[in-house]
Amino acid sequence: MPRYKLTIEYDGTPYCGWQQQAELRSVQQAIEEAVEKFSGERRRLATAGRTDAGVHALGQVAHVDLVRDWPTDKVRDALNAHLTAAGDLVFILAAEKVADTFSARLSAQRRRYLYRIVNRRPPPALDRLRAWHVIRPLDIAAMREGARHLVGHHDFSTFRATDCQAKSPMKTLERIDVARDGEFVLVETAARSFLHHQVRFMVGSLAQVGLGRWQPDDMLRALEARNLARSGPMAPAHGLYFVGVDY
Amino acid sequence: MPRYKLTIEYDGTPYCGWQQQAELRSVQQAIEEAVEKFSGERRRLATAGRTDAGVHALGQVAHVDLVRDWPTDKVRDALNAHLTAAGDLVFILAAEKVADTFSARLSAQRRRYLYRIVNRRPPPALDRLRAWHVIRPLDIAAMREGARHLVGHHDFSTFRATDCQAKSPMKTLERIDVARDGEFVLVETAARSFLHHQVRFMVGSLAQVGLGRWQPDDMLRALEARNLARSGPMAPAHGLYFVGVDY
Repeated sequence: MPRYKLTIEYDGTPYCGWQQQAELRSVQQAIEEAVEKFSGERRRLATAGRTDAGVHALGQVAHVDLVRDWPTDKVRDALNAHLTAAGDLVFILAAEKVADTFSARLSAQRRRYLYRIVNRRPPPALDRLRAWHVIRPLDIAAMREGARHLVGHHDFSTFRATDCQAKSPMKTLERIDVARDGEFVLVETAARSFLHHQVRFMVGSLAQVGLGRWQPDDMLRALEARNLARSGPMAPAHGLYFVGVDY
Repeated sequence: MPRYKLTIEYDGTPYCGWQQQAELRSVQQAIEEAVEKFSGERRRLATAGRTDAGVHALGQVAHVDLVRDWPTDKVRDALNAHLTAAGDLVFILAAEKVADTFSARLSAQRRRYLYRIVNRRPPPALDRLRAWHVIRPLDIAAMREGARHLVGHHDFSTFRATDCQAKSPMKTLERIDVARDGEFVLVETAARSFLHHQVRFMVGSLAQVGLGRWQPDDMLRALEARNLARSGPMAPAHGLYFVGVDY
């Protein structure tokens, strides 16, 4: 059975997240329904990252096995036609054939996230559900200095959701960069894998630094505490974008 | 009575346009309701541009006269609080006091628009109502060559809606630039004023050039025909942004 790797863009707003939850519509369900309409097969997708409700994706990756050997352009276009017909805000950017040893989850070498903050006094009209609105001016230099403490191999328990299912809180953060782009503050980060809510807790803590409520090296103290109570408030889901996966 | 100049951002999606139409909610109505809640006064706003349903604004300008001499920051923040409470996607970026000779409409020296096209095969998830989806690759060089013919003082009847209320079809197009930015094609244009639907007809015609259906100098022939039947199909509203006004 050929295995297909799917690269996926979605607007997380109307979904309960990647994964099914009770009666709510999930991104996974939207794609699995499209797969079934296209191929007649009910298949479970495996994914690189189970994003939360409201989190967007520019390059989520999943894989699925189908009985037939379809041209990959046909897989992409047919799935997009079914997703469009269903009114979904989920689209397949690329479909590729991969070896059956490829796993969207286990083969991932690096996951990349972007967090967008709109940093100005008036509320955003066009980015209301596309960026976190922070009114008071953020000190980018201080945020950068704070972020430095997070890079490397650490116990990230401070930035870990209580429901996180990872076996260990030890992770290696490859990078976390803070930049200003006009009214936006962009936080880009990459690691082989992240704990549940890790990016949002890290960004929420960096915002404390940017607002002057924390000193940059309070990030180090928070990290070393290995205690969720020492994290800043979690940044909201709608500022977070799953940018891509490197294999 | 002090006159206030308001700079306004909005997501055009849920509105029938700037101006009231039957029972539909307009951008103007949203702001006038906020003005009334704030000041107790029912005031009519005058505007630089009456955008159509679905058209967005990054820097629309309007003016309003109020009895009291309010601090401008208070005007901006109070209107935004009322707009937020009403669930509107319209926000005041700036409020300024201006002379009573200032008119948002008549004092405008230059209006600037941006048209966004997402030029790729898969439908856009995050930009569905923020850009026009054009699947076949657009030839930017040809579009630029076609656009050159539009710059200057011309009779723009070819690119004029039948309901246009301008006294004359003569307009001076200051500039119209076409650029690629990744998967996006951006058309930026500026003039003292535009005819109704002029930008969308011009962009729709440039798309014909970009798709190779028209040669670049077909733009000149279309312009010289002074006949709406010779325009390309009108580009959809949701790709258009009213960027700003120079006074």
